[in-house]
Amino acid sequence: MTNKRLLVIGGVAAGMSAASQAKRRMPELEVLVFEQGDYVSYGACGMPYNIADPRRAIEDLVVITPERFRSERNIEVRLRHRVEEIDVKKQRISVRREGALEWFSYDWLVIATGCRPRELALPGVRIEGVFSLHHLDDAARIKRYLLQPGLKKAVVVGGGHIGLEMAEALCLRGLEVVVLDRLAATPPGYPEEITRLVKTELERKRVRFLGQATVKAIEGRERVERVVTDQSVLDADFVLLAAGVVPAVELARQAGIEIGPSGAIKVNPFQETSTPGVFSAGDCCEAWHLLLGRGEFIPRGTTANKQGRIAGANVAGAQEKFSGVVGTSITKVFDLEVGHTGLFEEQARSAGYQPATVSITASTRAHAYPGARKITVRLVFDRSSGKLLGGQLAGGEFVAKRLDVLAAALQSGWTVEDLARLDASYAPPFAPVWDPLLVAANQARKEG
Amino acid sequence: MTNKRLLVIGGVAAGMSAASQAKRRMPELEVLVFEQGDYVSYGACGMPYNIADPRRAIEDLVVITPERFRSERNIEVRLRHRVEEIDVKKQRISVRREGALEWFSYDWLVIATGCRPRELALPGVRIEGVFSLHHLDDAARIKRYLLQPGLKKAVVVGGGHIGLEMAEALCLRGLEVVVLDRLAATPPGYPEEITRLVKTELERKRVRFLGQATVKAIEGRERVERVVTDQSVLDADFVLLAAGVVPAVELARQAGIEIGPSGAIKVNPFQETSTPGVFSAGDCCEAWHLLLGRGEFIPRGTTANKQGRIAGANVAGAQEKFSGVVGTSITKVFDLEVGHTGLFEEQARSAGYQPATVSITASTRAHAYPGARKITVRLVFDRSSGKLLGGQLAGGEFVAKRLDVLAAALQSGWTVEDLARLDASYAPPFAPVWDPLLVAANQARKEG
Repeated sequence: MTNKRLLVIGGVAAGMSAASQAKRRMPELEVLVFEQGDYVSYGACGMPYNIADPRRAIEDLVVITPERFRSERNIEVRLRHRVEEIDVKKQRISVRREGALEWFSYDWLVIATGCRPRELALPGVRIEGVFSLHHLDDAARIKRYLLQPGLKKAVVVGGGHIGLEMAEALCLRGLEVVVLDRLAATPPGYPEEITRLVKTELERKRVRFLGQATVKAIEGRERVERVVTDQSVLDADFVLLAAGVVPAVELARQAGIEIGPSGAIKVNPFQETSTPGVFSAGDCCEAWHLLLGRGEFIPRGTTANKQGRIAGANVAGAQEKFSGVVGTSITKVFDLEVGHTGLFEEQARSAGYQPATVSITASTRAHAYPGARKITVRLVFDRSSGKLLGGQLAGGEFVAKRLDVLAAALQSGWTVEDLARLDASYAPPFAPVWDPLLVAANQARKEG
Repeated sequence: MTNKRLLVIGGVAAGMSAASQAKRRMPELEVLVFEQGDYVSYGACGMPYNIADPRRAIEDLVVITPERFRSERNIEVRLRHRVEEIDVKKQRISVRREGALEWFSYDWLVIATGCRPRELALPGVRIEGVFSLHHLDDAARIKRYLLQPGLKKAVVVGGGHIGLEMAEALCLRGLEVVVLDRLAATPPGYPEEITRLVKTELERKRVRFLGQATVKAIEGRERVERVVTDQSVLDADFVLLAAGVVPAVELARQAGIEIGPSGAIKVNPFQETSTPGVFSAGDCCEAWHLLLGRGEFIPRGTTANKQGRIAGANVAGAQEKFSGVVGTSITKVFDLEVGHTGLFEEQARSAGYQPATVSITASTRAHAYPGARKITVRLVFDRSSGKLLGGQLAGGEFVAKRLDVLAAALQSGWTVEDLARLDASYAPPFAPVWDPLLVAANQARKEG
C-alpha cells in the first residue's frame, strides 16, 4: 500500500502551517509544497523594518529554511516551482520548473496561493526603480536598489499599511518621501479623528501626504525620474506601488473551484473548497467575518496561520472549524500606533446596523506618571442595542493589545455596557485608573 | 422643603466618585464629604514613582483639590474631619475636628473608608524612620525623611506590590534595599514561573529578597538602626512596613452594618449595605468575584471608582448594578511587568474546579524585530471543561493590556479553545504572529 499524498500550493504562513500540521498528525503522509519563490517561511510583515536598516541582511527575516522543513519535519519543499494547472477530476496538478512541466497526483490538495499587489495599468510601471513589496525577493531587490548613491526622492503610491510602513522605512533611509492616495484618508477607511493624527505624524516626520491624487504615468529613462499625477509632477528616484492587494485565485478559478462574492476562494468552516479533497487557507480564501456574517477577503498573517493549521488538521482527519475574524489590524506610523477591529461606521450601516460613534482622547498612563502619550479611542456601536460593532484607535503607545481587548469583546458580542464593566488592569506606568477603553464605553453608554 | 443630604465618609476614589455622580444626577442634593486626611483626590498608586524622583513635588499627584470640588461641582469637602460614629437609627454621624464633636444628619450615607496597612505587633514600629505608605501624607513624610544625608540601607517588610514598587523607588533613590516576606514567593500567590523572574529582576538591580523571614523587632535610638528577623539582623536607615492591607470597617461594624466573611462590608450589587439608605464603595467593602461567586476583599482603585459611581448613581435614584471583578492586578518591578487576573491554581482548586495549567515563554515582538523582550504566560483552566480560570503574566513589555484580554475572556466565560480563536492584532513592533496568549491557549487545548 502506498502512502497518501498531500500537495500544498504556496509556502509561507498558510501553506507551511497546513503542511506542518498535517504531517504532525499523520506522519505517514507524504507532503510536498510547491513554492514559486525562493523562500517558504519568513516574517513578511517585517520587510519594511528590515529595509529601514541597511546593516541587516534580508535573510534575517527567514524563520525556517526549506532544509529544516525537510530534515526536521520531513516535508518536501520545491522552490521556484510554479503550479500551472489543477486538474480536480484526475486529482493532479501540473508544475513547471525551468521550462520542464511535470504532473503530480494528490489525495488532498491545499491551495495557499495568497494574494498579490493590485496591478496599476499605468505607463512606466516596469521602469527600473519602480517596485512593489510583496515577497521577500521584492524586499531584497529594493534593498539592493537603495544601496545606489544619489537617491533623494521617493514616491509611495497608496496610503494603506504597506505604503505607510514603507514611507517610514524610506524616510529612515534618508529619502524625501511623498505618499499618494486616490482617497483623502490614510489609512483608507479610517475616520477623520484617526487620519488627522496620522497626517500630523507624517508631517512631523516631513513625509508629504497627497490625498485624492491619481497617478497618470511613471516616467524615466535609465531609471525612474518622476511620477505624473492629476495634480502635479513629482520627482522620484524610487517609486513603490502599494495600492492594495487582490487574492491570487486564477488556478482555483480555472479548476472550477468556487470563488466567493469577495473575489477570494469560498471555503466552509473546515477550510474545504467546493471541491472535495481540496482545501484552501490564507490570503487567497475568504475568512468568515463574525459581524458581517459572510466570507470576506481580509488578508492577515494571523488568519493565514490559523486557517493553515485547521486545513492541515482536517486533511489528517480532524473536524476542526475556523470560527471567524473581526478584522483586527494594527500598524505603526513612526511614533504613532494605529489600528482597528470590527466594523467602520460605513460598514456597519451597510450591514444593517444603526451605528452610533463616540471618540475620546485620553492619556496612556496615570496622572503625573512620566512619559505618557495620548491615545484616541473611537467606538462604533449599535444605537438601539448598544452592541459593540468596532473600534478604531491611534496613540503613542499601548494601542495593539487594547485592540485585542476590543476584539475579544466583539467575539463575545459585548455591548458598550459590558465593556464599561471590564475589570481592566491598572498601575500608573500602564494606564490611567479609568482605562481609555472604559472612558469611551462610559461615554457610549450615555449617548446610546 | 429642605434639600436632601448625602454624607460621604472618606474621600479619594470611591468617596469622591460617589459624591460627584450623585450630585451630577441630582443637582439639588446637598453633598458633604468628610475626609480625615489632607487630600481627597490623588493618584495613590503613583506614590512610589513620585517618591523615586526627588525633583517632583508630592502635590503633583493631586488630581482635584477640595476647592475645585466646591467651585466646580458644588460638593462640600471637610478635610481633617474624623467620623467617630454612625447612628443608623437617627440617620446621623458624629464628626470630630480638633477636639470639637458635631452631629450631621443624612438622608443617604456612603461609607468609603477604604483600607489601611495591616499593623504589625512588633517592638519598634513607632521609631523614627519606620513608615507605612498608604495616604499621600505618608508619601510626603517619607519624601521628607529621604532628604536626610547619610541614609544608606533600607528594609522593606512585605514582598507584595507596594513592597516591590517601593523597593524600586528606594533603589532609585540610591539606597541598598532588602525586601523581606514571610512567604517564599514574591509577589505572594504567584506561581514559581513568575516569582523566579521577579527574583532574577530584583537580583539584577541588586535588591536582596529574603523569603520565609519573620521580623521579630525593629531597633534604633534617635532613628531606626536595624531590623531583627528570625534569620539575621539587618542594618537599616529606613524601614517600610508593607505587609498587606485590611479593610477599614470599624465604623460600619459599630453601627451594626453587616460585615461579610471576607472581613469587608457586605454590599448588594447596588452597593447598598444591610442598612437601608447606607451605601458602601471601594476598598472597605466587598467586590463580587465572578469566578468565585462570592464577595471578596480585593482593594483596587479601578473597582473603587466603578463602585463609587454606582453608589452615587443609586443614591440619585438609578438602579445600577456593579457586575463584579475577576481580580485583575498589575505591577512593575524595575523592567519587568508582572500581573494576574482570575484565579491562581490553589484558589481554583479551593473553589471546586479541577485546575490544569500551562506555561509558555515567548517573544514580545515578531521574529527579527529589534528590541523584543521575553514574556511568560501561565494559564489556569478547568481540566474537564477547558474553561479559562486565570492567567499570570510577567514580561519585559506589553503585559498589562494582555491581562485585560484575559480579563475580558474571563468575564465572558471563555474556554481556552475560545482564546485560541482570538483575532488578535499583529504587526512586528507589537507581537509575534502567534500572540503569546494564543500560544498558551493552543498549548492548553492540547493538554486539557
